[in-house]
This record gives sequence, C-alpha cells and structure tokens, in this order.
Amino acid sequence: MKNNASLRHIGEVLLEAANILIFPHISPDGDALGSSIALCSALRQEGKDCFVLLEDRIPEYISFLDHEYCTRDQDVFETVDTVICVDCSEENRIPERLELYKNARMRLCIDHHINQDGFGDLYYINEGVAATAELIYTLIREMGWKLDDVSATALYTGIVTDTGSFQYSNTTPETHIIAARLITEGVNVNDISVKLFQNVALSQAKAESKIMSNMVLFAEGKAAISYITKEELAALDASVDDTESAIDMLRNIRGVEIAAFLKEKDDGIKVSLRAKTDGNVQQIAKAFGGGGHKKAAGFTLEGELDKVLAMTKDAITSSMEGETA
Amino acid sequence: MKNNASLRHIGEVLLEAANILIFPHISPDGDALGSSIALCSALRQEGKDCFVLLEDRIPEYISFLDHEYCTRDQDVFETVDTVICVDCSEENRIPERLELYKNARMRLCIDHHINQDGFGDLYYINEGVAATAELIYTLIREMGWKLDDVSATALYTGIVTDTGSFQYSNTTPETHIIAARLITEGVNVNDISVKLFQNVALSQAKAESKIMSNMVLFAEGKAAISYITKEELAALDASVDDTESAIDMLRNIRGVEIAAFLKEKDDGIKVSLRAKTDGNVQQIAKAFGGGGHKKAAGFTLEGELDKVLAMTKDAITSSMEGETA
Repeated sequence: MKNNASLRHIGEVLLEAANILIFPHISPDGDALGSSIALCSALRQEGKDCFVLLEDRIPEYISFLDHEYCTRDQDVFETVDTVICVDCSEENRIPERLELYKNARMRLCIDHHINQDGFGDLYYINEGVAATAELIYTLIREMGWKLDDVSATALYTGIVTDTGSFQYSNTTPETHIIAARLITEGVNVNDISVKLFQNVALSQAKAESKIMSNMVLFAEGKAAISYITKEELAALDASVDDTESAIDMLRNIRGVEIAAFLKEKDDGIKVSLRAKTDGNVQQIAKAFGGGGHKKAAGFTLEGELDKVLAMTKDAITSSMEGETA
Repeated sequence: MKNNASLRHIGEVLLEAANILIFPHISPDGDALGSSIALCSALRQEGKDCFVLLEDRIPEYISFLDHEYCTRDQDVFETVDTVICVDCSEENRIPERLELYKNARMRLCIDHHINQDGFGDLYYINEGVAATAELIYTLIREMGWKLDDVSATALYTGIVTDTGSFQYSNTTPETHIIAARLITEGVNVNDISVKLFQNVALSQAKAESKIMSNMVLFAEGKAAISYITKEELAALDASVDDTESAIDMLRNIRGVEIAAFLKEKDDGIKVSLRAKTDGNVQQIAKAFGGGGHKKAAGFTLEGELDKVLAMTKDAITSSMEGETA
C-alpha cells in the first residue's frame, strides 16, 4: 500500500472539481475501462462534468462497457481542472495524454499496481486488491454515491477480467464479497460471461488451432513448444494479436510445466515463456537478454525461426535437468 | 424447492447413524464428488464411520479431491445403516448401488437437481442454489461441524465446476459469499485453478484443434458447424471423450449464435447443438427426434456424416430465417 490520501479524501476533492477527466492506462483492459466508466457514471450522477479520456481504441470484447462516457477529444473541456488516473500510476502509460495531465490543476490517482514513488498530487495505491474495480467500489460506497447497474456491470467486468474469472491467486474473500454486492445491484452474470468469454475472434480460433497443430512436447512431456509464421497467419487472415492467448493454451496441457511460444515480429523472433507450478522461466529469459517473472517471461532474438526454436528447446531442457539434478 | 426435512434434521439423523455411505451420482463431476468428500470429512471428524461409495472411476481432473474417503467396495460395511445421496436424486444415477440403497435402514438425499417426487426417506432438494456444495456448506455450518481446508477445497471445487468459474447464470450473491468464506477457511484458489483448468489432456487439445480446422461458418457468420471422424480421432490418439468441450468452443466464436458439432458413434452420427443469446436449438433437435433445452440440445441420426452435416446445416439455416421473418 502506498498512499498520501484516503479514498474519502480523493472523493471529496473530486466533488469540488470544476470538471474531471478520467485516464485509464493505454491499451485499456476490463479493469482499467470498467473502473473508469463506473467512476464516471457515479460522478455524473453527482452532477459533475466528467469524461473518460482515451488515446487509443476500446478493444472489441469490452466495447459494451461504454455508454457515451468515453472520448478521444482532448479538447472536450476548454480548461481541464482535475485529472484522475485509474488503474494506472505511470507516465509512460498515458503518453499522449501526458501534457494534459501535467497542465491540470489537480492530479489524482487510484491504482492497484504498486510503484516506488506514488503518482500525482493525491494518490491511493493498494496492491492488495485483485482489481482497481474493488477500490472504485469502495470509494463509491464510502462517498454514498449512486451505484446503478451500468456501474455495477463495469466494476464486475473489471474484477472478472483481472482475476481470470476468480481463478488467479489475487482473488481474496473481499473480491467475492464485492462481487456478491454487485450482483445484488443488478449485474447480469451470464450476459457479461457471454460478452467476455463467448466472443473469440474467428481469426484467433483459427490461429490457435494452427499453433496447436505445430506444437511438440519434449522433456518427457513436461515441456511444450510451438510457433506460428507470418505466412501461416496471413493464410488464416489473422494477425499477431490473435496469438496473445496461445502461450496459456500450451501451458494448460496436462503434465506441461514449461511452455514456449515463438512468433515472427519485425525486430526478430519473439519468444514467450510460461511456468505452471514449480518451474522458473525468468532465468531462461534472462540468459537470452529478456526478462519477466518466474511464471511469465520472454525474450526476442534475431535469426531464423528454426534456430531460435532449437535454442529455446535446448535452454528449457537444460533448465529442467538442472532442477532435478 | 422440494423437501420433507430441513438440513438440520438430516444432519441430526446422520449423527445418529451406525455407519454412513455417501452416494454421489454416476460419472461424478466436481460438485458431486466435492460435496460428498466434504460431507465425509466433516462426519469422520464427528467420529462417524463413513465412506464415499462410487461405482465408476474418478475423472482425472478432480482426482486430487480424494483423500482415501472414496471406495468402490460395496462390502466396506457388513451391514449398511444409512445412505445419503448427494447431488443426486434419481435411481438411474446410482444403478449399481441401487440394491444397497434400497436395503439401507435410512435413506437420505441432499441435491439441487429438482425432480417431481422427492427421493428417499428424508430429502432436501433446492434448485435455487448453483451447486450442492452450497447446501453441504450450509449443513456443516448449521450443525457446527468442523470445516477444514480439505473440506473447504472440495466445496470450492464443487462451486467452481458447477458455475463454470462463477460465469453461469446460476451464480448468485450467496454463491460468492460462500466462496469468500471457503477462501477464509484455507482454500488455495490458484492451486485449484491449476488443477481444474491448466490440465487439458493432449488428446483433447489435438482433437479440438482438428475440429476447429474442420469448422465452417454459414448463415452470414451467425452459425458454425464442425465434425470429427473416427479416423481423425484415431490418428490423434484421441477418443470421443476428448470432444466434450468442442461444441462450446464453436459457440464461443464471435458472432456465432448457433453452433453444431457432429461425431461418429456406434449408433449413428451424434449432433450437439448450442445457442448463444436469443437462439433456440430445442426445436431443431426435436424435428430430428432429439431433445434438450433452448440453449443446449442434440439428436442422433443414422447415415453418412456428409449427409447429416448437410441436413443439420439446412435445418439451422431455416430456423434462423424463420426467426428474422
């Protein structure tokens, strides 16, 4: 936890603002957008002039959250009074809105991504919650603001997406208790599930099918590796964006402890790595000049796909032998 | 709700039993097995002689729930005193245990599948809960029995599997509140997620990949149809069991409202149907002599795969035209 203000203090400052712009991070996900929309809806019902300002597009799978709260017009207010960064506490995650942010009279921040220095004039950053949506829920409740079904749906979406549908280790009893209250406020659970999870782009499904057919298991079935080439993607009318979930699909195979996925990018072959339970892929990525965490890491190498494939396979094999030695 | 006894009454009868056999339904799923194991653990801690009696194998993905509570030995007790059916209230779901059930001194039942007639001497059947695990949780709490981390994990697994990880419309505020309490009792959320969802058989992944590559969209992208042949399954070392989730994968494609999946079985071509939001596949299945619900139905036809494929496609197209007409 890192804060120089309570949620209530931030709420009171918001109520005093002449106008408010809410900044979710770039490439907004369900939590960034859901938290922003819920806050915008609550503030408008308190009579505030308020918009969610974006600098890029809303991804298709969460486009249902917007109800004319979002804009990309930086001149929506003649003079910006107060900016609040939501699910975001880094300047490099608001690059095209940074000048607007710096010129605002008051800069606020509510986030669950911890950073060393705090962010803005008043900030409340709590990495102990699964989603920023939990913090926005608490703010709305503490301030006694209205929580309608639009806001409840937006917050529930934030929680569901940031917890992988209550599956990640960040899920706490409090996460479930807030989810219970949001359903009571009118969230249609099945409707959100259909929009989030029964909404896979055809190009993604086709790309994943190809990646699965390219996959080989090795290290006695404890490791999986696969790839997709630019030509294969083009033949399926797919793009590299359609391969985002492929590495999880490989890791999810029974018995697989370490998974690797390779794709061709302009600057080389990008290798994504995942570990399931005890494995550590951070060291493998580091050895090739990359980085990441124990369970999720990656690196990029120049060269031919075949060679990078062989090198990655060798590195994983060595790493697994090292563990059992 | 259909009951001739309260949960507390059933709890008191269990405490008086000389010995207890718990019967989950055949082909036990996470809720049937999880609820049974939690109840068994709680009763043993109350000093009762108690086993979960199965008549088939525990599926691999939930095998972690057993802690030597399960047996297939019908002679585990010389004389059976009390039987309790859990997540099961139909004789045809305990076929090989039916005689044992009938010969017991006392027959109890706790379930959330409604049926017309009740079941056993004392029964508590509540279709308003997402999982029988919710009822077993309430029973354990009302009786003041011990709920350790083994029981909590078993009940959480029951809730997660019967709600599709809190995504189905059966998920209520109470479901989340119980989940919160179970985590407080020591459930490791991430550990369960890994065991349930990062545990896809290679043969299943390969079969699904093939099914995706066989798929075609029609009706302006609003319908998807695919199949897998016996030869294709054999070439992948896969079985029809590996195709259970295929129909959901087809339905989950963006824009698809009706999905159909065909597989070859001994008695003909089995066709599974799913509808996403407004569609109704029950009528299509009925027209071919099958049955099911609005959102999930199916039928079996004799004949060649190609012909059944064409007939199914035509029927879906007609049904969708009927809707817009």
